Amino acid sequence: MGGALRALASDWFESRRDGDPQFTEKFFSQVVDHFNYNSLGNATFNQRYLITDRFWKKSFGPIFFYTGNEGDIWEFALNSGFILELAAQQEALVIFAEHRYYGCSLPFGNQSFSIPEVGLLTVEQALADYALMITELKLQLAAAHSPVIVFGGSYGGMLSVYMRLKYPNIVAGALAASAPILSTAGSGDPRQFFRDVTADFERVSPACRDAVTAAFQQLREAAERRDYSHIQSELSLCRPPSSDRDIHQLYGLLRNAFTLMAMLDYPYSTHFMGSLPANPVKVACDTMLGGSDLLTNLRDAAGMVYNSSGLLPCFDPYRLYVECADPTGCGLGFNSLAWDYQACTEIEMCYESNNETDMFPPMTFTPEARQLYCSKRWAVQPRPGWLRIQFWGDDLSTASNIIFSNGDLDPWANGGVRKSLSPSLIAINISDGAHHLDLRGSNPADPESVVKARQMEAELIAAWVKMERVRLQR
Amino acid sequence: MGGALRALASDWFESRRDGDPQFTEKFFSQVVDHFNYNSLGNATFNQRYLITDRFWKKSFGPIFFYTGNEGDIWEFALNSGFILELAAQQEALVIFAEHRYYGCSLPFGNQSFSIPEVGLLTVEQALADYALMITELKLQLAAAHSPVIVFGGSYGGMLSVYMRLKYPNIVAGALAASAPILSTAGSGDPRQFFRDVTADFERVSPACRDAVTAAFQQLREAAERRDYSHIQSELSLCRPPSSDRDIHQLYGLLRNAFTLMAMLDYPYSTHFMGSLPANPVKVACDTMLGGSDLLTNLRDAAGMVYNSSGLLPCFDPYRLYVECADPTGCGLGFNSLAWDYQACTEIEMCYESNNETDMFPPMTFTPEARQLYCSKRWAVQPRPGWLRIQFWGDDLSTASNIIFSNGDLDPWANGGVRKSLSPSLIAINISDGAHHLDLRGSNPADPESVVKARQMEAELIAAWVKMERVRLQR
Repeated sequence: MGGALRALASDWFESRRDGDPQFTEKFFSQVVDHFNYNSLGNATFNQRYLITDRFWKKSFGPIFFYTGNEGDIWEFALNSGFILELAAQQEALVIFAEHRYYGCSLPFGNQSFSIPEVGLLTVEQALADYALMITELKLQLAAAHSPVIVFGGSYGGMLSVYMRLKYPNIVAGALAASAPILSTAGSGDPRQFFRDVTADFERVSPACRDAVTAAFQQLREAAERRDYSHIQSELSLCRPPSSDRDIHQLYGLLRNAFTLMAMLDYPYSTHFMGSLPANPVKVACDTMLGGSDLLTNLRDAAGMVYNSSGLLPCFDPYRLYVECADPTGCGLGFNSLAWDYQACTEIEMCYESNNETDMFPPMTFTPEARQLYCSKRWAVQPRPGWLRIQFWGDDLSTASNIIFSNGDLDPWANGGVRKSLSPSLIAINISDGAHHLDLRGSNPADPESVVKARQMEAELIAAWVKMERVRLQR
Repeated sequence: MGGALRALASDWFESRRDGDPQFTEKFFSQVVDHFNYNSLGNATFNQRYLITDRFWKKSFGPIFFYTGNEGDIWEFALNSGFILELAAQQEALVIFAEHRYYGCSLPFGNQSFSIPEVGLLTVEQALADYALMITELKLQLAAAHSPVIVFGGSYGGMLSVYMRLKYPNIVAGALAASAPILSTAGSGDPRQFFRDVTADFERVSPACRDAVTAAFQQLREAAERRDYSHIQSELSLCRPPSSDRDIHQLYGLLRNAFTLMAMLDYPYSTHFMGSLPANPVKVACDTMLGGSDLLTNLRDAAGMVYNSSGLLPCFDPYRLYVECADPTGCGLGFNSLAWDYQACTEIEMCYESNNETDMFPPMTFTPEARQLYCSKRWAVQPRPGWLRIQFWGDDLSTASNIIFSNGDLDPWANGGVRKSLSPSLIAINISDGAHHLDLRGSNPADPESVVKARQMEAELIAAWVKMERVRLQR
């Protein structure tokens, strides 16, 4: 999900990791295939998790368990400071578990993305991993009476919801931050995502939206004239485009930059999925409305994402952005392969831009295009509707103890649950928040809306923990 | 589960089936592997189901869906008349779905029990089959607003519970008759099952229990003396036993006869899992306390089960009973293979007789013995505790709309839920009922306790249907 910059950020995490004393990195011997006793017997792989008991009131305090999503688990651990702050308050053990097929948790090593080995990359397997890991670690840690609360952001938030739906015997509640459980299940409007990216720029100023629209219009006209050298020089491309395919790739690269700035529109500079300044949407709008040349403005706005270090001499659209089954981006490297596979199987993300409800060039991704791509790339057929069957879609009336938090700045927000469904299925909308801002550690620049959201989350979680403790001690 | 006679009964079902106008037999194109997109692509198999709309108020009345268990689906359809009576009352569509790997629903035809083909025989796959089938059939039948209630007996009742736990978006409630969800998840006392079989005979008279105990004692003494010809003649065996193994097999055969009579202790003669007279436990006790020779009494009591037609000239313990990973019996034929596999993987049934808390010879089946057997037979390692993780064990506080009905005469009863857990998790105990008597059609010989149970079940189900209809029409 919008992950085009993950790989570029990894150097930074490598350096940060060694120096971070918060977590101990461990490995859990995980069953490779939970759902077929004959495929691999009881073969196991090493699933990575990070753990810290520095705040834990042993055998009593709760367990805060992050259901890792599509990336290196350190990336999430280092960008979810709220969970540690809450753990300090509530005397919790904290575990960040890495999702199978991501980071170092590769069930078949570097053969993991071969066919058929990749076939064990499913949401159900990942959930079973977490269920088994929690059960076993509670035994090892003599923590039978410690209530477990799951946390997750984005796809990780979806997993937190699903854990509570499918394993309420194991988890007492879920904080699902920016979890687009509806749009990724094929419900909703395919135009919603890029419309909402656009809305973020329009919010800064309608002129900003118009400038982006006009810049893409200039680019389209130049492309139609086949004025490729003009495009190369204006956008500082390493090579001139030479085909419609190249132009398409360029559009994807540029759209992705705006997507990331909208998702990561935090009020302070961050190093999550790349490095961005504070309020990147505002900075990008200043750029778009600054110099007189629209195309160089477009280049400089995109450069905030792709060239934050200023060290890139030119842009190579094929190196910086890989098109995949997720039109919001799969990132680069092994993790991007895994996410592409998930977008080809269970996770449905047929989002389109159309230049009418959004400021981008028309780029569709229909179910038919998805089917064709996925069949060629991974030899799989997507099964539309499966996520709604398996994980209930919007039929959540029997569920409980879930917080659906969303930031109004986040283009994923309207793919999730925005209204409370019951006194224990609570939507928290953060008016000035981007993608799971609430999971981040406190910052002086935080808007009041996220401070309040975190307070409410803390209170709800404390109440769940209290209730669950009674239940576990029956 | 106690299925040693299933295959013998199949002729009777064959003849009955063609003449039964109640149901139409159909096939659903079912996904072979729901949980691995690369193992078989979107390969499908023909899953059998029986359907009748004779009572259905189209597109409005509920759908009563039987979650088929370990056998030919006709066997369950023809022995669950209560569901049809209820359908007539409540204007319901009725579907009986056959469990994968049983009856005619073999995903790989006669290769289905090869390794690794058998590996797709899991509870999770079976539940996904039912979830997909219900979803698709509702579409085909324009029944989007028809609430779905699931029904099941024994393991089928377990599946009904699990459907409500895991797919409450699809099923509004479950009637789980005689579903031993706790004992089969490895919770509880391994002595419970055969102790409760014994209790049924003791209930008729303590002298009956003593006679069975004494008969087995005589048999053990003869075996210890190696007086095999005496054993052969007294028990009318086709061949004399000649080893401890043969004696063990004989014990298994005999214990199984008493198990079946206890399970099927109905107040009228039945043709379910074989043919039995009314009140078979009482009849067996009359037999045990009749003639003066204990061993011939034992033979005649067992003969009620194995030789109800009176046509067998002698008993061959190896032909009539196959030892497997379910000490209560796996039956014979293909269905028995499938059940043996399930007992070797997810379903834990390490029940023992010990001659202290029961009237049988000591026969243990330890987790270690299970592991050894299953490894040799199916190349699998059981994963103890898995069912508790996956299907919540007794942690049912978040569930709703489930009836756990159990008959006090049923040795499976105390492996299930016997006390209501909440106003919508209701235990109904039927004081004079055997194994899922409540699912059977009304009979003049029915005890008052089952008549009342069915009334309560009908009322609860009507209420669930009403509530769900509101929800579906939102």
